[in-house]
Parts: sequence; C-alpha cells; structure tokens
Amino acid sequence: MQIPSIPKGTRDFTPAEMVKRNYIFDSIKDIFRLFGYAPIETPAMENLSTLLGKYGDEGDKLLFRILNSGDFLRDTSPDDFTNPEPGALSAKLCEKGLRYDLTVPFARFVVQHQHEISFPFKRFQVQPVWRADRPQKGRYREFYQCDVDVVGSNSLLNEVELIQIIDKVFDKLGISVTIKLNNRKILAGIAEYINAPHLMTDITIAIDKLDKIGLEKVNEELAGKGLSSSAIEKLQPVMALGGSNHEKLSALKKVLANSETGLMGIAETETVFSLLELSPVTTKIELDLTLARGLNYYTGAIFEVKANDVPIGSICGGGRYDDLTGIFGMKNVSGVGISFGADRIYDVMTQLDVFPKGVSSTTKVLLTYFGEKEQLYSLSLVKKFRDNEISCELYPDVAKLKKSMNYANGKNIPFVIIIGEEEMQSGLLTLKNMETGNQQKLSVAQAISEIIK
Amino acid sequence: MQIPSIPKGTRDFTPAEMVKRNYIFDSIKDIFRLFGYAPIETPAMENLSTLLGKYGDEGDKLLFRILNSGDFLRDTSPDDFTNPEPGALSAKLCEKGLRYDLTVPFARFVVQHQHEISFPFKRFQVQPVWRADRPQKGRYREFYQCDVDVVGSNSLLNEVELIQIIDKVFDKLGISVTIKLNNRKILAGIAEYINAPHLMTDITIAIDKLDKIGLEKVNEELAGKGLSSSAIEKLQPVMALGGSNHEKLSALKKVLANSETGLMGIAETETVFSLLELSPVTTKIELDLTLARGLNYYTGAIFEVKANDVPIGSICGGGRYDDLTGIFGMKNVSGVGISFGADRIYDVMTQLDVFPKGVSSTTKVLLTYFGEKEQLYSLSLVKKFRDNEISCELYPDVAKLKKSMNYANGKNIPFVIIIGEEEMQSGLLTLKNMETGNQQKLSVAQAISEIIK
Repeated sequence: MQIPSIPKGTRDFTPAEMVKRNYIFDSIKDIFRLFGYAPIETPAMENLSTLLGKYGDEGDKLLFRILNSGDFLRDTSPDDFTNPEPGALSAKLCEKGLRYDLTVPFARFVVQHQHEISFPFKRFQVQPVWRADRPQKGRYREFYQCDVDVVGSNSLLNEVELIQIIDKVFDKLGISVTIKLNNRKILAGIAEYINAPHLMTDITIAIDKLDKIGLEKVNEELAGKGLSSSAIEKLQPVMALGGSNHEKLSALKKVLANSETGLMGIAETETVFSLLELSPVTTKIELDLTLARGLNYYTGAIFEVKANDVPIGSICGGGRYDDLTGIFGMKNVSGVGISFGADRIYDVMTQLDVFPKGVSSTTKVLLTYFGEKEQLYSLSLVKKFRDNEISCELYPDVAKLKKSMNYANGKNIPFVIIIGEEEMQSGLLTLKNMETGNQQKLSVAQAISEIIK
Repeated sequence: MQIPSIPKGTRDFTPAEMVKRNYIFDSIKDIFRLFGYAPIETPAMENLSTLLGKYGDEGDKLLFRILNSGDFLRDTSPDDFTNPEPGALSAKLCEKGLRYDLTVPFARFVVQHQHEISFPFKRFQVQPVWRADRPQKGRYREFYQCDVDVVGSNSLLNEVELIQIIDKVFDKLGISVTIKLNNRKILAGIAEYINAPHLMTDITIAIDKLDKIGLEKVNEELAGKGLSSSAIEKLQPVMALGGSNHEKLSALKKVLANSETGLMGIAETETVFSLLELSPVTTKIELDLTLARGLNYYTGAIFEVKANDVPIGSICGGGRYDDLTGIFGMKNVSGVGISFGADRIYDVMTQLDVFPKGVSSTTKVLLTYFGEKEQLYSLSLVKKFRDNEISCELYPDVAKLKKSMNYANGKNIPFVIIIGEEEMQSGLLTLKNMETGNQQKLSVAQAISEIIK
C-alpha cells in the first residue's frame, strides 16, 4: 500500500511547528485585543457570487471551486459539454468557492451584519485562505492570514494605532523591522502633476526599480509606457527625493503645490507623523513613494513592513480604503487595515533564531517508572503536578527506562521524574533535568517549585 | 444591490459569539496540554483517495469535492457526459475534497509522518470539518471538532486519562455531565453468547430503545431482525441488568462466563474503574451497554458524555480503536481518543447561562473625550493602560459623548474614561463603571488598579 500524501501546496503541521506557529498567532492576537480589536470568523466556503470579480481575472482563475453536492449536472445540458467553455461550465457545476483572502469576506460580513455591528467596527480575523497558485518555495495553496481592520471611521488615529500595533508585534516577536509608509493621494497628485493620471501605477512601479536598474533605465521604461518627455522631465525632482521624512514631505509640498489631492495626501501623512510624536514607537518609519501595493483599492495611507536583517518580501502590509463595502452596495464606509504574513514571519524568526526557548516543548514533565506497582503510585502522583498547572505526562506503558527517556527527548520534555521502589518508600522523587542531565531527590512540593522555576 | 449572504449551513461568528467559542476552545486546549497532548493541524483539502470509502457510501456522498483547477475537463471525454454516471464523473473532475472529520486525516498524518513521530503519539486537533448534510437546526455544513487521541499504546491508563480530561473540561466549563462507558468486547461477547455475532449492532440498537418502547417491543424488533426466540430468551438477563456498575459487571461475568472476548471486555472495564479509584474524578460514570457509537471502528472502550440538565445529544464521545492506521497500511497501532462537540457545548452553556461574566467583552476600557485637544491628550494616555495589559480603546473620532457611550454599550465595554478640559488640568480621570453607572475621579494609577480589580 502506498504511503498516503496531501495535495501539493498544502501542509501538515507537526506539534513542534504548531507550538511555534501558535506563539506567533497568540502574540499577534493578544496585541490586537490590547488595542480593542475583536475577533470574527467567516465560513471557508463563500458563494462564488461573493468572490468572483473581486480579485481580477487572474484571481478568478485561482479560486478553488466546490462541486455542487448531489446532482451536480442539474444545471447543465449535454450541449454544455460538446464545445465546453470552462468559465461558463464551472459556473454551472459550482456555486461555492473557498475563501481567497480575508478582506472580501470581511466586506461581505460588514454589509450583511451592518445592523448588528457597532461602528467604528474594529475586527481581527486569523483564518486560512486558499489559492490555486502554482506551489513553490514559500508559496502555498493554503495559508493563514492575520488581518486587523477598522471600518466606519475616517480618523487618522486609526492609522497611528495600526503603526503602534506593528511596532508592538515585531518588538514582541524579536524582529527588527522598518515600516514603509506611502499615501495613495500623493501618488495620485504626482500623476496629476505630470498630466498622466492614468499612468499612476506604471509610474509607481517604474520608480520602484530606481535602486535596481538606475535612473536612465527607469526613464526609458516610463517613455515606453507612453509618458511624454516633458512629463518625464517634470518627474525628475520626485525621483531625486531624499533625506528625512520631513525633508521629503517639504520637497513634495513644493512640487505638488497645485494638486489638491497631492496636498491632502501630504497633510494626512504629516498628521500621522505628528500624532506619532505624542505616542512614539521605536520602529523606524520611512516615507517610501515607491510603495504601490494594492493600488486599485487603497485610497489613503499605504503600509508595508520589511524585516531589517532577513532578505524576504514584506511581512505585513495594508492601507486605507474608502469604499471596500461598496462592492456589496454599502457606500461611504471608510476603513483601514493591515495583514500579517504568518508564514514569512515564521521563516524570519526561524532564520534569526528568535523563538523563545520554552516554546518548542509542550509537556513540562514526564513521569516514568519501573514496574506495575510504581505505575499505580505514579497515577495518583501525576494529579498533583496538573493541579499546579504543570503540563505533565504519565508514560502509559511499563517499559525499559531507555524507551521513556527517548520519548522525553523526542518531545523535548525538559524534566523527567523516575519512580522506583526507593522513591515509593521515601516519598522523595528523582527529578532529572534533561538539558543539564542533573538529577535531584526532591519532595513533591520541591519538585513542583523546581519545575515551575 | 442584494445584501450578500453565505452558503446555507455555514455561519459567520460575530465578536460576541467568538469570545464565547474561544472560551470553550481555550479551556479544552489548556486541559489537553495539561495532560501532555500536543497540537497538530492538517490541510482543509485532502486527496479524495484518502477520504473515499472511509465513511461508508453515505459519507462518500456527503464529501465536498473541489473542482480541479485549470482545465478541469482534461481527464474527461465527451462520452462521459452523454450518459453521465455522477460518481465516476466527479472522480474525473475532482481529485481533492474537504476534510469530513479529524480522524481519517489524523490516521493519514500518523502513517505519513511515522518516522518523525515519538510513540505513543498524543495529539489534539481543533479544526473545522465540512459535510454536505442537509442543514437543519443544530446541524451545520461547517463545524469544529476538538479531537484528542493517543496512538501507539495499549495501556488502559490512556482510557483513564481521557476520563480525567472529560471530568476536568466539563468541571471547568460548568456543565454537570454523566460519562457513559461501554466496551465493544462486551457487546461482542453478548452477541457470541446468543449465537448471533453478525447481529451485534442490531442488538445494541434494539436494547438502546428499552426505555422508550419497552421490553415487549424490543423483543419484537429483535425477532424482526432475525434473532431466534431462544436467542431472545437468552438475552433477557442482559436486558434486565441494573444496579451499580459493579453489580452490572458481576452479573455480566456470569452470563458471559464462556465468552473469552466478553470476559476480556469486562476485565478491561473493571481495570478502568479500579484505576479511577486511585485518582478519582467527580463526574458520575455509568456502564451503559446500549452505547453503540461508531461500532464498526471501535474495538475496546466506548465513551459518551451527556449533559445532565439539558436534553441534547452527546456532547463528547469516542473510544479505543485497534486498527485506525490500518486503512493506510500501517498495522497494529492501537489508539484511543475522544472528540468534543463545540457547537453543542456552546448551546448547553448558553441554555445553562454558565459563560463567565467577563467573557462577553473584549475591550476593558474605552477612552473618550470632548474635543481635538482632549483627543491628543488621550492618545498619550492610552499607552499607559495598554502597558498594564489592559485592553483599551481610544474612540477614534471627536463626537458627541452619547455616540461613544452607545459604542461602549454595544461592545459591552465595562469601563469608560471621559476626558474633558478639567481632567486635562487636574490629571484626574473620570472613570465610569458602565454596569453600576458609578463615576469616580481617579489618578491614572488608581484607574488602572480599579480596572484590573
């Protein structure tokens, strides 16, 4: 019989991986809660009418679709199969799909439950999403997203709090990061200023390549996109922007003096920085005009977080959107949110070796023994450890000591208590520290305090 | 535009529901960990070859299948659609399905990872499962299971520990329960004793109806199943069994004196009871011969837990299986496990009103204020509460006090701090207890200790 396997791009998580992953999730959730965000969950399956058209054509293709249950051919006719058009046919075979991200289900949730919700609605959501992407290193078909959003408030205090959350999360996890900040209105202002509003995305993407390919090549690329030479000329001061955030903003203010939108973006960004002076964070924040993620959807601030010491894509990102719920007919609900990438954070923490030491074991102490009599004695003993909230295992079988020691090592259990005839008579336990190899004879109370310590 | 909805049989969970559900999950997981069980997770999607044939024909029909991505018609020919045979056709359209329970994925996990695992392998798993069941009250198409199992050990200490886990979980959750215990070997012994081993399940099901339909009707039903009158005659003492567990076992020992299997089941059950005397639980345990859940799969102990004060099906159940991993070619790995039904437990706790009081709110204190100046003052203040691990929200907008008060009420926030000119000058905060309506003027430190208290 063949060893069973799992679908490509999916993963099992062993206990050793789970405890580390949970450490990340729990740390993030605790901080979300500290800032007053509350959890929601949505179903893995959504109606395809909710999902389709929300992620572009490419996204539609990457949706996992669920075959209708029962007679799945009920909506089809033989004609559908003679000259099949896959898109139309799959719509007849499937009415549900797996969640592709947490943002669209969140928008759907807000609209569907708008009368039960207190606005501003501060929610977090930590659940898996599924994408039929080609699997490759670091890219999975099932992965978790950790999203935190507030909708129903225009206040820039929300942006500030999200920055504080980012600061606190990565401080807690032990990852040194830089927060990159941009504003969609500034980008729109720049495009307006050079009379090419329709090329905003192309301009941003081109500027993003400055470091890699140099100014000359960037200008060539812009020309290739249809930007006039005078527009490219006008763009040069923007590309030359440097210095502190303050200096960049001052320079931009001159360049965009005639763009109402651009000035609004600058003012928003200045407000965020000045609010942060009242409640400072330790993480470095960098105004970065090349930040263009999710442009077609963000309307104000755009965030991205990079690890300083590990070369990897962004590990957190997000922004302000003014019309997320508009796709479901609920207008004028502005929101802002960010999403933490748990898989990349896991990889960064592994590379930096910053998982706390205790996090790799789940059981604190294993009780093992030499024979039947000792087994019974241990059964009454184990309760005392658990009553003190010590995660404790009683080795279930009478076996050679070596076997239970191997078991303790395999599970990374830091302490083992060995019960023999002598221990039963004296009431003193032999407590072995598995890391140091040190053995002590201790009373139950002493052993408990030694383990807790 | 139509208000969006979710697929029938699925649910959104609002913050108010989530905090209660998490209270249940966290309580259960904490106790699993206390007993040395470690978490694993498996993918939502499994290969259909892993799932098919494991849950009977009915189960196969209830699997949600995922349409192959890309060209999903690639394995089909036009002939497949002229006279379609749905089973064969869906196998060509879909190679993956959604997890139907946590047991089969667990067996697959153990076989796939057998060389990385330390046996006995004590794992817990809390994840959703999906079934294309007809939705009805209390039955969903997506629901969570909370499974805890140990494989690779025959020791009855495992059964005892699972009983201790059940005892601790329901004690913690505040639900009074009865644990019903049976043993598949006793049932086999009874069927053997009346020469009808093939009718074991029918006999058990019939006996189960004793209370409802009475002895005469049960005997009629047994005759209808093909049981001879002499066999029915021989069965009467079993149906008349009563008294304490000890009395039932003594009586059974006489009836099954010639059944090796039956006596083994009795001995196992006696051992479990006597081990429990060494480490007693407070929950009532009742030997119940009518317990027949999952018979075709359990081989030893069978457990079921009933709430004493709410009429609802079992809220936890499980048993010993000697060959779970055999379906994937790994023989002779005995295991025992139980599964907690989170949805029913939620319903029971709601009916009994036993959720702890604090569990309905996520934010401890809301900071609100009268104007712009006070907003800035509050921004520097809020950090002090969070630094003390107090979940705290700063109302993000300058608004009428009534609005932020309504917000606090909507979210069940127990404390509100109101910042006005006076508070800024005196440094004393107005702390309002939202339950009592009581207002106090306090320093920040006093407010913090009042809230923590």
